[in-house]
Amino acid sequence: MQKPGRIYLVGAGPGDPELLTIKAARLLDRADAVIYDRLVSDEILELANPFAERVYVGKSTGSHSLKQSEINTLLVHMARKHCHIVRLKGGDPYIFGRGGEEAEWLSLHDVPFEVVPGITAAAGCMAQLNLPLTHRGLATSVRFVTGHMQADAEPHHDWRSLADPDTTLAIYMGVKTMPVIAGKLLEHGLPGDTPVMIIENGSTPDQRHFRSTLGNVCDDLNRLDFDPPCMIVIGRVISLADRLSLPVVNLLPESTFDKNVTSDRPDGDLRYVHTA
Amino acid sequence: MQKPGRIYLVGAGPGDPELLTIKAARLLDRADAVIYDRLVSDEILELANPFAERVYVGKSTGSHSLKQSEINTLLVHMARKHCHIVRLKGGDPYIFGRGGEEAEWLSLHDVPFEVVPGITAAAGCMAQLNLPLTHRGLATSVRFVTGHMQADAEPHHDWRSLADPDTTLAIYMGVKTMPVIAGKLLEHGLPGDTPVMIIENGSTPDQRHFRSTLGNVCDDLNRLDFDPPCMIVIGRVISLADRLSLPVVNLLPESTFDKNVTSDRPDGDLRYVHTA
Repeated sequence: MQKPGRIYLVGAGPGDPELLTIKAARLLDRADAVIYDRLVSDEILELANPFAERVYVGKSTGSHSLKQSEINTLLVHMARKHCHIVRLKGGDPYIFGRGGEEAEWLSLHDVPFEVVPGITAAAGCMAQLNLPLTHRGLATSVRFVTGHMQADAEPHHDWRSLADPDTTLAIYMGVKTMPVIAGKLLEHGLPGDTPVMIIENGSTPDQRHFRSTLGNVCDDLNRLDFDPPCMIVIGRVISLADRLSLPVVNLLPESTFDKNVTSDRPDGDLRYVHTA
Repeated sequence: MQKPGRIYLVGAGPGDPELLTIKAARLLDRADAVIYDRLVSDEILELANPFAERVYVGKSTGSHSLKQSEINTLLVHMARKHCHIVRLKGGDPYIFGRGGEEAEWLSLHDVPFEVVPGITAAAGCMAQLNLPLTHRGLATSVRFVTGHMQADAEPHHDWRSLADPDTTLAIYMGVKTMPVIAGKLLEHGLPGDTPVMIIENGSTPDQRHFRSTLGNVCDDLNRLDFDPPCMIVIGRVISLADRLSLPVVNLLPESTFDKNVTSDRPDGDLRYVHTA
């Protein structure tokens, strides 16, 4: 049998094509085939060899274009057909990207592969807002958690462990499950005034974000109609937004702020809502 | 007074120059000045404009070339002298990079800045070994923690929260404090056979790594003489090393394995020790 091609499990980063790694761009340029997800933007796909075969295996919450097992099978099939295959995933393939499952399958089928890390959404979104994930005196650790749950089950987490005021909590795929998550964190002792930042379409021109608190975030999510995928970051580092200059992309004339959004709270939590 | 220049707080990634972002490479190419840390490699500095002023502010554990307050002052000084300044840090400037402190100082002094995320060491080192940070059934979350401690104090962590078997724990700057960390994690219920991977000089040609367990890691660290900076990753995802093909860089002829290193344990934990 012919020697299989090589599969590169590549992270496409948070959205901005400039946040791709040099290695990812080089591999895309040389690819015979690109297999990509919903979270990979057109601008990033444009970096791929124009003659490469492209296969969309996009997944969105609740509706999988292809099941994971079908993607696995496809990858092995493509390795028998092409030399240089890029499996492109939003963010980092090894942080909630299910890259490990694909790697296991490839190993089992003796398909050579390599992993190219990408900027994970939490790092990309927060950097865009000038906000750090760790900071002396505010957060000695940062934790990435998935809010995704199987069917109607609750996310399985050690809630007492998650409700740690010294840790920044970045929640992936958590918009729909935020009522459960916020409720559990409050129940396990995280204060209701813990600041929260929600970022939609982070690091892209369509980025929107707003600041809230753990106690109010669910009401705010309902009111503002933010859609997945969003990044939800909980922790004291968000309070640095008061001291750090907002990045240039956010220094918009007031007229671009959404006039329909008003804050009924004296702390003006919603003042950061805008479209970029 | 003259308008200050713009400072870019840029992540240099884990070491491999190809893991720099496109944006970081572009900014380095245009820089008038580059202020860089000990963890930034020569290969990466070579990407900078050759006419840029270069300032080394390298820090190593326990001995700071420049204090953080001196670096802050230097940044403001450089912004008055140059237009386009790159402040280059190993990994991601906002994950244990103290980038937030520099950003605060720049905000206070009205110096415009922008943050460019980098691949953080944990993601870079683990990808190099084909090992994921999260994985269905093994880790529903990943946590980045600093092992660094002030003088002789213990690291301040909620140990019960850290001893979570469903979370991958990536410890930055933890080689020296590993006896305390491992002891506390064991004391708070993390099993002694929890797998551990230690990676030295991750993602560079000098990378070395070894696999151990929580119960044995301190003995192994002593015996193998691994030096900081190392990444220490604790959790069940490490067990995937048994199923995932080792990356090509590690497929070395047996003769290159360090013959002086032997495992006296039946599980052969030390079999991954080698120099690349």
